[in-house]
Amino acid sequence: MIRSLFHALLASALLLFAVLSVADNKPTRNVILIIGDGMDEQQITIARNYLAGSSGQLLLDTMPLRAQVQVLAIEDQVDGKPVYVSDSANTATAMATGVVTSRGRIATAAGTNTPLMTLVELADEAGLRSGLVTTARVTDATPAAFAVHMSSRRCEDPDTMVDVSIYGFEIADCSAELKANGGSGSISEQLIESPLDLLLGGGRQRFEATAEGEEITVEALAVDNGFVVVTRPQELLQEKPGEKLLGLFAQGNLPVRLRGENGREAEAPVRSWLNYLNDYLGSARLPDPMNCEPNPDFDGTPTLAQMTEAALTHLSHDNDKGFFLMVESASIDKQAHERKPCGSIGEMAQLEEALALALRFASRNPNTLIIVTSDHSQVAQLVPDQSLFADYPVPVFTPGKIARIKTPEGSLMAVNYATNDFIMGEHTGAAVPLFSNTEGLGRISPFLQQPDIFRIIRGYLNL
Amino acid sequence: MIRSLFHALLASALLLFAVLSVADNKPTRNVILIIGDGMDEQQITIARNYLAGSSGQLLLDTMPLRAQVQVLAIEDQVDGKPVYVSDSANTATAMATGVVTSRGRIATAAGTNTPLMTLVELADEAGLRSGLVTTARVTDATPAAFAVHMSSRRCEDPDTMVDVSIYGFEIADCSAELKANGGSGSISEQLIESPLDLLLGGGRQRFEATAEGEEITVEALAVDNGFVVVTRPQELLQEKPGEKLLGLFAQGNLPVRLRGENGREAEAPVRSWLNYLNDYLGSARLPDPMNCEPNPDFDGTPTLAQMTEAALTHLSHDNDKGFFLMVESASIDKQAHERKPCGSIGEMAQLEEALALALRFASRNPNTLIIVTSDHSQVAQLVPDQSLFADYPVPVFTPGKIARIKTPEGSLMAVNYATNDFIMGEHTGAAVPLFSNTEGLGRISPFLQQPDIFRIIRGYLNL
Repeated sequence: MIRSLFHALLASALLLFAVLSVADNKPTRNVILIIGDGMDEQQITIARNYLAGSSGQLLLDTMPLRAQVQVLAIEDQVDGKPVYVSDSANTATAMATGVVTSRGRIATAAGTNTPLMTLVELADEAGLRSGLVTTARVTDATPAAFAVHMSSRRCEDPDTMVDVSIYGFEIADCSAELKANGGSGSISEQLIESPLDLLLGGGRQRFEATAEGEEITVEALAVDNGFVVVTRPQELLQEKPGEKLLGLFAQGNLPVRLRGENGREAEAPVRSWLNYLNDYLGSARLPDPMNCEPNPDFDGTPTLAQMTEAALTHLSHDNDKGFFLMVESASIDKQAHERKPCGSIGEMAQLEEALALALRFASRNPNTLIIVTSDHSQVAQLVPDQSLFADYPVPVFTPGKIARIKTPEGSLMAVNYATNDFIMGEHTGAAVPLFSNTEGLGRISPFLQQPDIFRIIRGYLNL
Repeated sequence: MIRSLFHALLASALLLFAVLSVADNKPTRNVILIIGDGMDEQQITIARNYLAGSSGQLLLDTMPLRAQVQVLAIEDQVDGKPVYVSDSANTATAMATGVVTSRGRIATAAGTNTPLMTLVELADEAGLRSGLVTTARVTDATPAAFAVHMSSRRCEDPDTMVDVSIYGFEIADCSAELKANGGSGSISEQLIESPLDLLLGGGRQRFEATAEGEEITVEALAVDNGFVVVTRPQELLQEKPGEKLLGLFAQGNLPVRLRGENGREAEAPVRSWLNYLNDYLGSARLPDPMNCEPNPDFDGTPTLAQMTEAALTHLSHDNDKGFFLMVESASIDKQAHERKPCGSIGEMAQLEEALALALRFASRNPNTLIIVTSDHSQVAQLVPDQSLFADYPVPVFTPGKIARIKTPEGSLMAVNYATNDFIMGEHTGAAVPLFSNTEGLGRISPFLQQPDIFRIIRGYLNL
């Protein structure tokens, strides 16, 4: 009896010792979350066909883990009903906070506007570093939702807090979130007060406005708050690791790498006068095929890979606590909205290069979980350049806009944009892909919901 | 020296013995390949939202393995250049034969028309049974390419071999494949001469024509060839296992389970007269929301699950060699072509039920590899019911056709069809999902090309 009690006590002591040892010696863990904004299967296949050839492989295709992520949104009320197509604000919120919210919200709860704790805030509490890198404005929805809280993604700077309007129509009002009203101020103001160690991308304009209640700009206030502000790629590479870094490399979104020939985008087929009388009469001429070409505006823009490399250097330097880094290739989405397939392809190439750097970092720092995913599906569809029904004696063509791209392997790839006739196409609702490195094996199931990404990262980093 | 030689010999003998033992005692292995025709991520998400709720899970979502499959086609010539959007003929050929061919071809090579050995033929050579089950005509492209060879999918019966035309326009000619010209005859004639043990679906009309060079119908010839022909679900259940079975349960494709309210499909928004003057003026009225409802034509149709159950019973009965079974949910695709989202959803439900049976069979027969995949992506897009740009003071709506479905969880799900204005929409080119049971783990990588499916099945069955 006494002997078995002794054994039980010994076993308990050993177990406690083991637990404490693990806690003390737990390895430095890092997470690199790469988000291809709007990177759905159509976009990935379009990029594969162009960049690797239809029988080739993207770097994404070589990842050891592939899963699918259901994207969720609700109406803007407590217990709101499901909304089947999301935007980048509610999806980034799901990944950053684990909570499903309504479209347009930045880490705030549907209906109540309650702030939701983000991965960047949790990482800070646990003593980990964090950084956000994007090819969009750093104040745009995806990066913002990982670090700050706002009822509307549109309230990006101190000048866009009250009665934000387009053509005289109000589309947002964040008055209640003004500092004067007890709030935390605009997205750019919150970002420079956040615990972020690094924030790289575009959107300098959003930091040029005068900070609320101050005499200086948000950018100047960032310096007061300890940020080193850089605006040129060369400066980025010169900065010493360990400093808090704010890199703003364009007034708005960063220019993209590729564009259509002479700036062309998807165009409407030109119909004959007879076709206007009846859909089955006359003919329609599709737009001429085009090449993708380097975008001259991209000159002098840091690549996503350069920004990612700087981020990895800064965040890992002399760091035994680990870090959380979010890297966004933003204009897969933005160029799809504008019906510019070459632009999206160039952004996919940028994502691939950033992933290559992340994988190299992980090979040297084995306790690094890499997750690559998308936030929502998008408008573009890879369609037959020659209709499946070309045999039929009637004109068969898209009612929307189409681009016919000459691919390096010598074929024509047609991309259709036909969710609306507005200046920007609509997102779509399909579940999105997720890829991970070997650290994801056994930790990520083949099917998940977007808030699960938050839980996986939080669990991995012990936040 | 002698001792080590002895050891080496002993080791070799043991190795040889081990190899022979494995060869002799290799387990009976089965493959169930379930093809959701046109089942892309949009279709799966639409079905998930409707059948399980947006936060729910389909049975597909619980599968332990998920991969993505690049779909490949080429021009109709030797070494033809890539074609980026496929049809069900070339994709079924890729899965059935491991060879990339041109659109419209049934297990024949691009350019040369050389017959390509199919899984059904290989299974027969190895002494395994095989069966094909579909909700389409059994002569349709997907089932056909697993068992027969034809230059065009349109040559389904003896009456559609020469100058096949639509509205007077020739769309196919298989004269060279007439038996009189040294060929093997039409698809229906080849099917009843194939080594198939079981063939269930629709398309009875294709067997009512007089067989070439005979005085009797293809159906009568099937009986002469040893097939038991059944045409009603009750007969299907009564048939004794072990017989060669041809089930033809409709003249054409099997009716689908669900349809839109009162047979409604996606409709064009109704534009105001002002909107015809300029896209940004006036307004557009979207179609009224609708329920999905049971399709009355479905009464008396065997479900895909009933046909799958009969197939599993027949193929596994008293069989120590194993089998290959292909099960197709065909009208996910066909209903998408016709812009009928409820129809596609009902076919997804049928696929789920067939998968449940396959999983039950595999739990009792562990050496059963289940693969669920799609052949190509399709036209439908889940779009926002309320546009992302609804704040803007202009009408924003699809230029194509849209259906707004009331879901069981009380929301509206909008599905857009806008690849053309023809009676049938276009396929799209995105890579397609693949799911497998535990037998697939370690055998199927996260990314593959469609012909790899052939190689995986062939390898698993030792064909």
